Amino acid sequence: MNTQIAVETPSDPVSGHIVAPCAPRTDAHLVLRPLGIDQVEITGGFWGEWQDRNREVTTPHSLRWLERDGAMDNLRRLGAADGGPERRGMLFSDSDLYKALEGIAWELGRKSSPELAATISDAVRVLEQAQEDDGYLNSWVQAGRAERFGDLAHGHEMYCAGHLIQAGVAHARTTGSDELLDVARRLADNLVREFGDRRRVDVDGHPEIETALVELYRHTGERRYLDLAQQFVDVRGYGVIGPGDFGSAYWQDDVPVREQPTVVGHSVRALYLMAGVVDLFLETGEDELLRTGERQWASMVAEKTYLTGAIGSRFEGEAFGDPFELPPDLIYGETCAGIASVMASWRLLLATGQGKYADLIERTLHNVFAASTSTSGDAFFYVNPVQRRRPRAAAPVDGKPLRADAPGTRPAWFDCACCPPNIMRTVASLGAYLATSDDTGVQLHLYASAGLTVPLGEGQVRATVETEYPLDGTVTVRVDQSPEQPWTLSLRIPAWCRGASVEVDGEKRAANADEDGYVRIARAWVSGDVVRLVLPMPARLTVAHPAVDAVRGSVAIERGPLTYCLESVDQPQGVDLDAVELAADAQLRANTRPDLFGGTVAIEVEGVARDDSGWAGSGWASLGEEPQPSTRRVTLTAIPYYLWANRGPSAMRVWVPLAKSHVAQ
Amino acid sequence: MNTQIAVETPSDPVSGHIVAPCAPRTDAHLVLRPLGIDQVEITGGFWGEWQDRNREVTTPHSLRWLERDGAMDNLRRLGAADGGPERRGMLFSDSDLYKALEGIAWELGRKSSPELAATISDAVRVLEQAQEDDGYLNSWVQAGRAERFGDLAHGHEMYCAGHLIQAGVAHARTTGSDELLDVARRLADNLVREFGDRRRVDVDGHPEIETALVELYRHTGERRYLDLAQQFVDVRGYGVIGPGDFGSAYWQDDVPVREQPTVVGHSVRALYLMAGVVDLFLETGEDELLRTGERQWASMVAEKTYLTGAIGSRFEGEAFGDPFELPPDLIYGETCAGIASVMASWRLLLATGQGKYADLIERTLHNVFAASTSTSGDAFFYVNPVQRRRPRAAAPVDGKPLRADAPGTRPAWFDCACCPPNIMRTVASLGAYLATSDDTGVQLHLYASAGLTVPLGEGQVRATVETEYPLDGTVTVRVDQSPEQPWTLSLRIPAWCRGASVEVDGEKRAANADEDGYVRIARAWVSGDVVRLVLPMPARLTVAHPAVDAVRGSVAIERGPLTYCLESVDQPQGVDLDAVELAADAQLRANTRPDLFGGTVAIEVEGVARDDSGWAGSGWASLGEEPQPSTRRVTLTAIPYYLWANRGPSAMRVWVPLAKSHVAQ
Repeated sequence: MNTQIAVETPSDPVSGHIVAPCAPRTDAHLVLRPLGIDQVEITGGFWGEWQDRNREVTTPHSLRWLERDGAMDNLRRLGAADGGPERRGMLFSDSDLYKALEGIAWELGRKSSPELAATISDAVRVLEQAQEDDGYLNSWVQAGRAERFGDLAHGHEMYCAGHLIQAGVAHARTTGSDELLDVARRLADNLVREFGDRRRVDVDGHPEIETALVELYRHTGERRYLDLAQQFVDVRGYGVIGPGDFGSAYWQDDVPVREQPTVVGHSVRALYLMAGVVDLFLETGEDELLRTGERQWASMVAEKTYLTGAIGSRFEGEAFGDPFELPPDLIYGETCAGIASVMASWRLLLATGQGKYADLIERTLHNVFAASTSTSGDAFFYVNPVQRRRPRAAAPVDGKPLRADAPGTRPAWFDCACCPPNIMRTVASLGAYLATSDDTGVQLHLYASAGLTVPLGEGQVRATVETEYPLDGTVTVRVDQSPEQPWTLSLRIPAWCRGASVEVDGEKRAANADEDGYVRIARAWVSGDVVRLVLPMPARLTVAHPAVDAVRGSVAIERGPLTYCLESVDQPQGVDLDAVELAADAQLRANTRPDLFGGTVAIEVEGVARDDSGWAGSGWASLGEEPQPSTRRVTLTAIPYYLWANRGPSAMRVWVPLAKSHVAQ
Repeated sequence: MNTQIAVETPSDPVSGHIVAPCAPRTDAHLVLRPLGIDQVEITGGFWGEWQDRNREVTTPHSLRWLERDGAMDNLRRLGAADGGPERRGMLFSDSDLYKALEGIAWELGRKSSPELAATISDAVRVLEQAQEDDGYLNSWVQAGRAERFGDLAHGHEMYCAGHLIQAGVAHARTTGSDELLDVARRLADNLVREFGDRRRVDVDGHPEIETALVELYRHTGERRYLDLAQQFVDVRGYGVIGPGDFGSAYWQDDVPVREQPTVVGHSVRALYLMAGVVDLFLETGEDELLRTGERQWASMVAEKTYLTGAIGSRFEGEAFGDPFELPPDLIYGETCAGIASVMASWRLLLATGQGKYADLIERTLHNVFAASTSTSGDAFFYVNPVQRRRPRAAAPVDGKPLRADAPGTRPAWFDCACCPPNIMRTVASLGAYLATSDDTGVQLHLYASAGLTVPLGEGQVRATVETEYPLDGTVTVRVDQSPEQPWTLSLRIPAWCRGASVEVDGEKRAANADEDGYVRIARAWVSGDVVRLVLPMPARLTVAHPAVDAVRGSVAIERGPLTYCLESVDQPQGVDLDAVELAADAQLRANTRPDLFGGTVAIEVEGVARDDSGWAGSGWASLGEEPQPSTRRVTLTAIPYYLWANRGPSAMRVWVPLAKSHVAQ
């Protein structure tokens, strides 16, 4: 196992100080340079409204629950003279707080707030009091519930440390303050002393520390953090964590990282690790790391990803299944796994410049991720079904469900509260995922109304993006300021799009994507230039890979980046979603519906409702003897998938069978 | 909650002393009377060979593992002066031993064995030593690991007691000895004192005690056991057990038993409870109990049962899913649930005389149950997939797998060892499931070579059944002795069968089943009369209910009672089971194959192998743009499902897509 390689002395053109969740220190191994949330400001629309809701609703809601469930008290009591109340909650509850602090840190980068700033400072006081002299900090271990680094398999100590580091780096990047970062660094240094230079050759069962240590290196320039991240990636895959309950593959310890052909095991762990591995590549340039990331990602998208972007089909171990094991009803599809997928895909996009990574980010954000949160911003799905055959009981009001996977509506919080603060930090930092730059110009990857300020050459580009995306495919980019020399504006043409056009300076032409998936517009720009990208969004029908047995003969309705679903509440009386099919001559009609969710686009389609009562009493029949159900025409209504379950318990399905005569064509 | 009803003073024509696992005390509420294994002796063939293997291989194998894993020692240590070694294994390990003892008891009924008799007597000494003065017996609680009856939800104390009672009753029935029964009765009396007369109104989280107490009542005639069973059925369904981790439905405590419309929750629990509920009906005649059993069973078969007879699709809670949630790849299908299904169905058959219950028993026994055990008799599946997309690592040799659900071949044993001894007791008592009698004659439900001795009227019927079932559908019944008065021989015509014929005394006629599913032959029989039933078994294609999305457009190959599967090892080189379809003109060719498994019938069928490489990189495409895979013709070979995974790790599938042009017809 001699895989450590020399780390180049970094040049410093990027410097790790970009106000973004992934801010490489050098651009030696980047194809695209990220931009900070100070450079890309989302100004409204789908994501802008969510960012406001995230700040005004989700953030205080989460802070209340972190108080209510003891995540704060668990740390406060460590600094209390009398030991305080008993520790409560999950062993990794510190990380829930840290993710919330990271979310607040990004919020402070978007817009100042004395109150939110004080929330972090107050938390820092608590953490400083709780932190041991040698930098160690973990409320579970310090409560005497476990030995320090005694059970790396299950203990989540490095996982918690990683989230503290990410929060500290985010806070330092957005505010310039090192107060939270200093706490994180002391803990990171403790890890370096304990594990560095291969003093121990094991690693945490839940990846997260890898990407965090690379980020800490980026921000501080201290090589020891990068070295430790490298070590953790190098030692993994040799069974160093032990088999645990699910076997080594569960925590990606069955195959050395560089040899792993696909994504295996716990899906959040697999994708956090992938993010860390690509982060390491971005700093060290070790091609094998990029190749394993690309390879695993390709396998994931081709064989192990739901149409909504959800990953991890198995409840058992919250894990990836076998290739094509993608049943829509028995799906886990954890919210955090969707977030982890975005993190890993973004790093691969920076490393390669290939639009397919942004395609998956778009699909994941607009579907499984968007579905995770109620329209009210204060309730969340942990598990994200693609089919719900029977309405389930609503989540308790102002309470937690018995099981995260059970409820028919989004619960306010969870005993295992990993998802809501993960949503917080993702939404708050979303500006950083919209655009990048390189020496030739600016690239737009996700479409949202935004203002951009991008240094380019000797000058800077300022531009304004306006769009009603994802409900409308017209995107207007107005150049407000430009350097004198020509530069290239690159616009991603989503893989789903046909017939994109672009109008520059009143001249319209087809927007043919290059092999990376972008249309490139190179010119000497002047202030006031307007580019109008039109991505036609007719509603369309999508089919799955033929090996996905669970949706054979079925189609999904999509429009633009949005996957649609049939929710029972929108269908004619008496229609059972287990017994509907799309008509052979189904025409999709997209209708703007101001009455639904404050305005969305619903899709009407002719379908048939089967009467399966001829099957009464049996689940099977001999071919040729099967009852031929009578059918009646019905008009079905599909809504964007992410909006389901906002009107009480319901049945729902994304994939709908095509009536046989259509399959037969 | 005023559901207790008067229990009739039983007449005693049946008396509870039939040497069978369900021996009603009265025939007041029976349509069919069970026969004992002393009356129905399996003499060879499929089940006869398995009974031999069960006795000679599985039984000593299981006893070795019960020793090796501490199930015996856990009880021995309670009687040891020095307290013995530390208790090991699961909290319900006592029940594993009890089920093995029950299996041995039935073996003793089949054929005497001083060695097996001594095994029980030795165990009785251990149990007597372990049992407390007040009759309490549970090695987990007595080891100080829990309070007595302190956690009915999870403690399995009554569950273990139930299995001890069943073992004691079986032993008494087969040997006349009360030594094991006396231990069981003391424990049952302890339960009566603790819980009887509603001194407590809660009940064990895992049903099993209900059927056991009814059986104890049947054998002893002591009403207090029946009353307690009644009480446990009456109190369940009101949330008395608490929500636990999975909610009250998990242990059937969400809806009162009599109101439950369908099977919910943990599938073994649901079906053990159903067995107990119907047992209670059989003794008390309370119609509501029968109706809830019939209703739940009907819902189960129509909406929640796999073609193999497997039940319980969800890993999460080992539970039933929603209706039609039956993905073949993500299936739990626990072996014990199949056994529980047979137990419940048998009781419904006795109560109603309807052949549909025997149809499900046949399907379950020949498929999911038969698949549970290796052809060598010393390795077992706990979870029974209907599709295995990728071969998994073989189970460890002479060891236990990390997880019961993981291995690619059958493991020798499990940490949670409920299934193997459950298989033991089921196989050993199987003779009792073949036939019944009523005042008019004898009914054959399952077909196997066997000798029957049935009291009828003033005399008795002796008959010999010969058949190569399930590989051949010819069943010969020779009457060796008959009372003088006419009687009716009823032969079940399986629901899968078309064109059955029956030849009596050289005269052949169509065997048209009556509405209960039986052909009835009434005559004055004389010794030497021969009935030849021919159940044609052409290989056939089966389709599923259209709401089972997971197998839409697919067919399963069946022949007689056997479900077939494609196992990778039998297919031409390079064929990927994720990419095969049956050809539009598929003809099924059944071939006797002496080279396979010592002789079986394999089925050849023309198929196509798709080349899905056009899909590289994506799991979905717009309808009309999807890659059209090239295909090549291949000859596929199907084997009986129950034989899969006996030749090393493999891929396997039961449901195979039909090529589109076939779907289109």
